[in-house]
Amino acid sequence: MKEKRDFRAEIKEMAKKAKASSHQLAHVSSDLKDKTLFEMAEELERSRDLLIEENQKDLGAGEKAHLSSAMMDRLRLTPSIIQAMAEGLREVARLPDPVGQVTKMWRRPNGLTVGRMRIPIGVIGIIYESRPNVTADAAGLCLKAGNSVILRGGSEAFHSNQAISRLLQRTMVKIGLPQEAVQTIPHTQREVIQEMLQLEEEIDLIIPRGGEELIRFVVNHSKIPVIKHYKGVCHIFLDESADLEMTIQICLNAKVQRPGVCNAMETLLVHERGAHRLLPKLAEVLQREGVELRGCPRTKEILPGIKEAKEKDWYEEYLDLILSIRVVKGIEEAMNHIATYGSLHTESIITSDYQNAQRFLREVNSSCVLVNASTRFNDGFELGLGAEIGISTSKIHSFGPMGLEELTTTKFIVLGEGQIRT
Amino acid sequence: MKEKRDFRAEIKEMAKKAKASSHQLAHVSSDLKDKTLFEMAEELERSRDLLIEENQKDLGAGEKAHLSSAMMDRLRLTPSIIQAMAEGLREVARLPDPVGQVTKMWRRPNGLTVGRMRIPIGVIGIIYESRPNVTADAAGLCLKAGNSVILRGGSEAFHSNQAISRLLQRTMVKIGLPQEAVQTIPHTQREVIQEMLQLEEEIDLIIPRGGEELIRFVVNHSKIPVIKHYKGVCHIFLDESADLEMTIQICLNAKVQRPGVCNAMETLLVHERGAHRLLPKLAEVLQREGVELRGCPRTKEILPGIKEAKEKDWYEEYLDLILSIRVVKGIEEAMNHIATYGSLHTESIITSDYQNAQRFLREVNSSCVLVNASTRFNDGFELGLGAEIGISTSKIHSFGPMGLEELTTTKFIVLGEGQIRT
Repeated sequence: MKEKRDFRAEIKEMAKKAKASSHQLAHVSSDLKDKTLFEMAEELERSRDLLIEENQKDLGAGEKAHLSSAMMDRLRLTPSIIQAMAEGLREVARLPDPVGQVTKMWRRPNGLTVGRMRIPIGVIGIIYESRPNVTADAAGLCLKAGNSVILRGGSEAFHSNQAISRLLQRTMVKIGLPQEAVQTIPHTQREVIQEMLQLEEEIDLIIPRGGEELIRFVVNHSKIPVIKHYKGVCHIFLDESADLEMTIQICLNAKVQRPGVCNAMETLLVHERGAHRLLPKLAEVLQREGVELRGCPRTKEILPGIKEAKEKDWYEEYLDLILSIRVVKGIEEAMNHIATYGSLHTESIITSDYQNAQRFLREVNSSCVLVNASTRFNDGFELGLGAEIGISTSKIHSFGPMGLEELTTTKFIVLGEGQIRT
Repeated sequence: MKEKRDFRAEIKEMAKKAKASSHQLAHVSSDLKDKTLFEMAEELERSRDLLIEENQKDLGAGEKAHLSSAMMDRLRLTPSIIQAMAEGLREVARLPDPVGQVTKMWRRPNGLTVGRMRIPIGVIGIIYESRPNVTADAAGLCLKAGNSVILRGGSEAFHSNQAISRLLQRTMVKIGLPQEAVQTIPHTQREVIQEMLQLEEEIDLIIPRGGEELIRFVVNHSKIPVIKHYKGVCHIFLDESADLEMTIQICLNAKVQRPGVCNAMETLLVHERGAHRLLPKLAEVLQREGVELRGCPRTKEILPGIKEAKEKDWYEEYLDLILSIRVVKGIEEAMNHIATYGSLHTESIITSDYQNAQRFLREVNSSCVLVNASTRFNDGFELGLGAEIGISTSKIHSFGPMGLEELTTTKFIVLGEGQIRT
């Protein structure tokens, strides 16, 4: 009991320090923040051997715990992954600083000049699993946007996360910035998360990254706003007029290039008047790449050899070389399917028809809607945000990839000359 | 027990219908939405007598329950309040429709054109107390922004809210829009709120409006994002160079014009080198208007007759003709005081000094920061948003007054020509 109380006090104390640091960080110049990010990058590169050594402890424990090979892969720090972490920090340094931007300014009839100015959110809590590189990536983005960050990684990556965090803090101290602006919680119990999620006075935003179970736990326990996405059940709709060659290239890219990510295609919808022309050749190419196809009855008429798709397949995020296929009467039925089974993540139409392209763009309200392009483009870097801290499929604050701007908010600024309200 | 279960099913059913309607509403033209708002306004005016009759039932119950005269005032529907509700709907109709606006568009090196398009949030739950006019105001704003709304008013205004809601629904039906896009829950128990707050699949955003206790209840129980403000402890800082006449006009306006609202001044901070020049005359004017002053020891040296301010006064939202006053060493101490005791709502500096004006604007991160203007301007209409559905002092999604734009989100749209990710 005593231990639990101390533990609670410790998290609270960390959060209070993060809050105090955030006030200081909010007014640090872009130059100094960028200098810090470049220094952090060098520090990571200089400390490569140390990081790999600490990572070995996690890998050893992971082996004992019989982690899956996919998890072990995500956990592993290699020289090239450390290099990529350092490069990521440098890229963030090169992005424009959103803090202080006045996004709009207008004049009121009474002479008041009113504007909206970007400011940091304050303190951001990141709750994540396995990949230790998130520690550096998230800290870099939060720092550039003027936010303090409290990181709580998973137990699998404990030593790696602590080591990365210590290096980042060392740089903060060296530069003369508050080291409490980047803190990693040195405990990995679930109760730590519960404690964090109560601290609405100190923490302004929680971003969970990981499996659906972790994210639901966070949403269910948080008093603090949470930006999250549960899963990506992404669709491509082949319109009647879809070009065959484009269809094959885009579907192959969306399904096969990296099947384990949230913007990979999971369900293909095909216009009934295009199905005979498009499906046989497409199926052949996908199957050659090892994709298992599961079709609705009408799909099976065209591709008799494939498995039957069950109702639950339409909800499924396979994250694997599996694709469900449904023949639909047209764009209307395709959009209804997406609204019913989709996860508001990413949907693409392949078409040569102007009206249908426009309708799909307007009426499908997922976080990213594409015409004649792969679903794999729903990513902060690919869309031009420079980097991303995550992706949101809830519509509040941010919908889609979150870049630096999404780590800020805007306040109203008002320039007067003595105006009063009448 | 059976009753409780039915009740839960009923709320869930309402929310499902709201969600289904929201998909339809998202694509209704601005013309038709505006026509609906004008029709609703006429319907309210035509039904004036009926509304007053229904309101009498609430007023009668309120008297029996010995509601305070302030609460009875907020509850009362008069011909002029009904007129104002109708006028409010017409004003919303005249505002530009945010839905479908493309706020940005850019081109990527691979030729993809990427944009951000405003779309409705979906289903918004409004939880409010006493004032029945919120029913029409909130419904109008949500409708214009393409959102379904589920309203849950307080028990005091039950009959008034139901009557207003029926009139709005009647207009929806007449126009041919789904009446489930505007629903008022016909139950007033607290458990209704708890049920609503679980429905994260159906409801996208909760906006509570009312006392701090209600709002904390909502935040503590919600799985759905909540945009809220607890209270407004608003400050004015009189810099050394503040003009005396401007100081008097602005402070009078900020404290006395409407002391019971969240953007009224609660604490005055005064630069020690301006205090002797400014305070005596200002105090005289404020006291003449019936304002009770409570000062720090240094204030009391200048105004010996006033009460002493206790530590807890600095946290207080009086909502009354009371003002706490503190003499500070300068802008630094003023900003520290605001960061320590403020509620991130509204702060104003009165100054003739360029550097201090700029510093205050940049470094005070409340939802609205003013120079030489009354705190009373922190209001959606006054700042030029056209109308407001509430004000937010949490920094997520919206910080400050929320207008129509804040009732939307943006999705990414991508126009391609067959691009795939490499």
